[in-house]
Amino acid sequence: MSSVRRYTLTLSCPDRVGIVAAVSTFVANHQGWIVEAQHHADQVVQRFFMRQEILADSLPFGIETFREQFAPIAESFQMDWKITDSAQKKRVVILVSKLEHCLYDVLARWQSGELDVEIPCVISNHDVFRKFVEWHDIPFHYVPVTPATKADAFAKVIHLFERVEGDVMVLARYMQVLSPEMCDHYSGRIINIHHSFLPSFVGAKPYHQAYERGVKLTGATCHYVTADLDAGPIIEQDVIRIDHSDSVEDLVRYGKDIEKTVLARGLRYHVEDRVLVHGNKTVVFR
Amino acid sequence: MSSVRRYTLTLSCPDRVGIVAAVSTFVANHQGWIVEAQHHADQVVQRFFMRQEILADSLPFGIETFREQFAPIAESFQMDWKITDSAQKKRVVILVSKLEHCLYDVLARWQSGELDVEIPCVISNHDVFRKFVEWHDIPFHYVPVTPATKADAFAKVIHLFERVEGDVMVLARYMQVLSPEMCDHYSGRIINIHHSFLPSFVGAKPYHQAYERGVKLTGATCHYVTADLDAGPIIEQDVIRIDHSDSVEDLVRYGKDIEKTVLARGLRYHVEDRVLVHGNKTVVFR
Amino acid sequence: MSSVRRYTLTLSCPDRVGIVAAVSTFVANHQGWIVEAQHHADQVVQRFFMRQEILADSLPFGIETFREQFAPIAESFQMDWKITDSAQKKRVVILVSKLEHCLYDVLARWQSGELDVEIPCVISNHDVFRKFVEWHDIPFHYVPVTPATKADAFAKVIHLFERVEGDVMVLARYMQVLSPEMCDHYSGRIINIHHSFLPSFVGAKPYHQAYERGVKLTGATCHYVTADLDAGPIIEQDVIRIDHSDSVEDLVRYGKDIEKTVLARGLRYHVEDRVLVHGNKTVVFR
Amino acid sequence: MSSVRRYTLTLSCPDRVGIVAAVSTFVANHQGWIVEAQHHADQVVQRFFMRQEILADSLPFGIETFREQFAPIAESFQMDWKITDSAQKKRVVILVSKLEHCLYDVLARWQSGELDVEIPCVISNHDVFRKFVEWHDIPFHYVPVTPATKADAFAKVIHLFERVEGDVMVLARYMQVLSPEMCDHYSGRIINIHHSFLPSFVGAKPYHQAYERGVKLTGATCHYVTADLDAGPIIEQDVIRIDHSDSVEDLVRYGKDIEKTVLARGLRYHVEDRVLVHGNKTVVFR
Repeated sequence: MSSVRRYTLTLSCPDRVGIVAAVSTFVANHQGWIVEAQHHADQVVQRFFMRQEILADSLPFGIETFREQFAPIAESFQMDWKITDSAQKKRVVILVSKLEHCLYDVLARWQSGELDVEIPCVISNHDVFRKFVEWHDIPFHYVPVTPATKADAFAKVIHLFERVEGDVMVLARYMQVLSPEMCDHYSGRIINIHHSFLPSFVGAKPYHQAYERGVKLTGATCHYVTADLDAGPIIEQDVIRIDHSDSVEDLVRYGKDIEKTVLARGLRYHVEDRVLVHGNKTVVFR
Repeated sequence: MSSVRRYTLTLSCPDRVGIVAAVSTFVANHQGWIVEAQHHADQVVQRFFMRQEILADSLPFGIETFREQFAPIAESFQMDWKITDSAQKKRVVILVSKLEHCLYDVLARWQSGELDVEIPCVISNHDVFRKFVEWHDIPFHYVPVTPATKADAFAKVIHLFERVEGDVMVLARYMQVLSPEMCDHYSGRIINIHHSFLPSFVGAKPYHQAYERGVKLTGATCHYVTADLDAGPIIEQDVIRIDHSDSVEDLVRYGKDIEKTVLARGLRYHVEDRVLVHGNKTVVFR
Repeated sequence: MSSVRRYTLTLSCPDRVGIVAAVSTFVANHQGWIVEAQHHADQVVQRFFMRQEILADSLPFGIETFREQFAPIAESFQMDWKITDSAQKKRVVILVSKLEHCLYDVLARWQSGELDVEIPCVISNHDVFRKFVEWHDIPFHYVPVTPATKADAFAKVIHLFERVEGDVMVLARYMQVLSPEMCDHYSGRIINIHHSFLPSFVGAKPYHQAYERGVKLTGATCHYVTADLDAGPIIEQDVIRIDHSDSVEDLVRYGKDIEKTVLARGLRYHVEDRVLVHGNKTVVFR
Repeated sequence: MSSVRRYTLTLSCPDRVGIVAAVSTFVANHQGWIVEAQHHADQVVQRFFMRQEILADSLPFGIETFREQFAPIAESFQMDWKITDSAQKKRVVILVSKLEHCLYDVLARWQSGELDVEIPCVISNHDVFRKFVEWHDIPFHYVPVTPATKADAFAKVIHLFERVEGDVMVLARYMQVLSPEMCDHYSGRIINIHHSFLPSFVGAKPYHQAYERGVKLTGATCHYVTADLDAGPIIEQDVIRIDHSDSVEDLVRYGKDIEKTVLARGLRYHVEDRVLVHGNKTVVFR
């Protein structure tokens, strides 16, 4: 949680000899001080993934010059790449229904500075948390959703998200299935918390499904939203032990603790540019 | 795993007032010393479950007399019940293929006395572990299974199991799907270890399925075998964290540690009469 | 967290034959419907522990009559016992410093009804969370503590606690060592969350101690406060995996998630009368 | 556990700009194909740690030439470094007493090829496991230890270890405290499994200590042996949940599962050159 300004370079490309040498030589030649570096070579798809955090002040130039000078290297290795600036905080828009646990949890982390982002607004299909959100000096938008008004409501959500120049949308138990178009348009930019250990118990009422099946652990999954319900790339998961004495209500209660923790981790990985998506899987450089 | 002789009474019946009073008064009236007692009232199906361990020597009579005198109480409450004697060790028949980890693990626990059972024989469709098993003074039977000989092979297994008066069959990564008839006949007496966190990744190659889906935890499930593949009542489950850097081979390796631990726990619960099955779910009094 | 009114009977006594029979016969004779029952016989100290939840409406009398009629049984077995009424919510006073995570977490659970208690006030040695607490319609008292004013400050805290008829005091990262007299006076009624896996890293800066020692897991402990620093009866503990790449700041961040979860569980066990203290240990009937 | 031949380069040095560039450029210039790479910059002690696995066949020269040509780079950065060859299997000598679980577990992993090492011999102060070990075609040496013969016995152990050119000694619940001289001489080459979550419960009978303290989790620690009892650098740890109903014997039983798993992981990290020691702490590149 350093407050020192850093640039974070993330990239992936076909695997071959010399990628690390080229990147690290470029950085070293400009006296760049690397504080964190991670690699992954996927030997099945022969693809290489990399993340580097560089102290901004160790470089003789800004991020724009970095981009220009690095571009030829990126091109020669056919890299998918980007570089971000920690001084440019990610703008996280939270969507919530009437369930409080994820909202309280994210706001607590934001309030204390642990989660180093901006929250330009919270959007909800219920008017329950207006005062609570506004107490944090965060604008609250009530956008009701009914079967009949769904298209209009999502258009409103998109409008609000765009107006505040949101980077990522967090479905903090929003309980609404977004339209396929919306999922496609914001691919890799909408994070959901699903209240089961996916791929078990897709869809509605996963705690009831888990209770019926008699599983001995219950879990939660943080994933990117895609048009396929609960089938997007998984960012983070966790579980907690339950037993025969636990009712569905107990599962819900245990689950809430897992949900908020898993969402917080997944969101953190995302806003710190630790997640690289390839196909339907993620590389998470923790 | 006290070596003091105990009777273990397990029962379930429709829930109503007075069950515990009736049972515990019966035991107390005969000066029975209860060392462990657990109850569970399932409020959805309105059924009551109970397990009691009583010191054999505290009672003025043996198990047969207990059965006779307790029968009227059991009848009046419509109990499914049984009482077992710790001096009568369960006879566990192990079925194994070429994978060593569960076999080594169960035999280590048996060798040290931690797992207080008899192992009258090990049956395998490969001749790999004969010497290892025989070193433990346990008979080893090689019963090859091919698509053509499957029915005969299973008949042979059943014959061996019956001949040694087996109580429970343990599929310690046996890798063969038993016939529906066999599953039905030995309902609640065949324990399998499946190498995934069920209901995720049913059937063949669950580690490959888990790798493809990109899950962040891998697990194992110990369950009773039923005619529905990997769908029987779950006794125990656990998981371990994995990440993008883990290959299928890594998942297999991590999984082996979970498999053997989960199987050992599940088997222990079973042989200590801690598992009560109701419908497709279990009550496990740990 | 059923809203149906229940009486919870907890007791401990020297172990002997007939305890369960006597208690359950008493309850059954009055048509008491037991929804949850747990026993524990400690074979080292030969003491028996019991907890029963009984539906209030199933009994023909109220809690006072229960107390009167049960007293002779309790006496004959030399029981330490009490019976509580779920309609009489526990009054939880929270003490907090400038760290937000436990406070947010407890208030979120209270706000949603998951934690079924009353919070008559929050007391803090800093004026940071006044507005946040007051937004929940909970009175906030700022009681500064300095080395010179410590005795007066604690007297003020006690006064506030007594005035609201508090049942339990929760040190939600309060960061102040209470006086031995206060610890003794409220024995079993002050709950602390310590930010290490006790007995490792007692006292100040446990995360720094953990970092120095190079442990691979970090944890938290919820315990009753006694005059011996961080040595009181443990109610609940948990850990999370860390590694060499984690700084002290990372440990603090990971730790916060464990702290709030462990405190929430411990507090829940306490207010639901699931914790029985014997010597310096607890029996926790989850 | 690929069977493809790899060289593993591990190093640490004072942190500065250009380390990764220098190393990776050297490797790339010789067409070295890196299959795994990990870095860690310790910002407190300003030291850099690195591990790289390189496909042996991708290089135009053998390990000796690598060493010669890399030496100047290593020198210029003041590196502590080494490079090992996966074709040169580590020679692991196991020391054991009468407890079977770690021995069975390590031999099962070795038997299946999961643990890719040589086990030139097993040494024990009891003659219990001779036949079991010999069944695996591994020599077994019985070296009794009494207070009077301790020095001679350890001299014998050292002699046996040296004669088989052992790389690492594993105390698989050996239950003997080695001499300080022996610890110093084989610094970083003796691995112990201690049956508690260190630094809690150092020394004898940790499960009894844990029972007395009433902890809610029990654990195990794999660490390098130093002259300070149970205070050496920690390689790996884990815990398992226990509760009031667990006796010391139960703790022992639960603990065995954690011990063998933690030892297996720690040993694996060591033999795959994933552990770099600095001061009394480890960097473990999993």
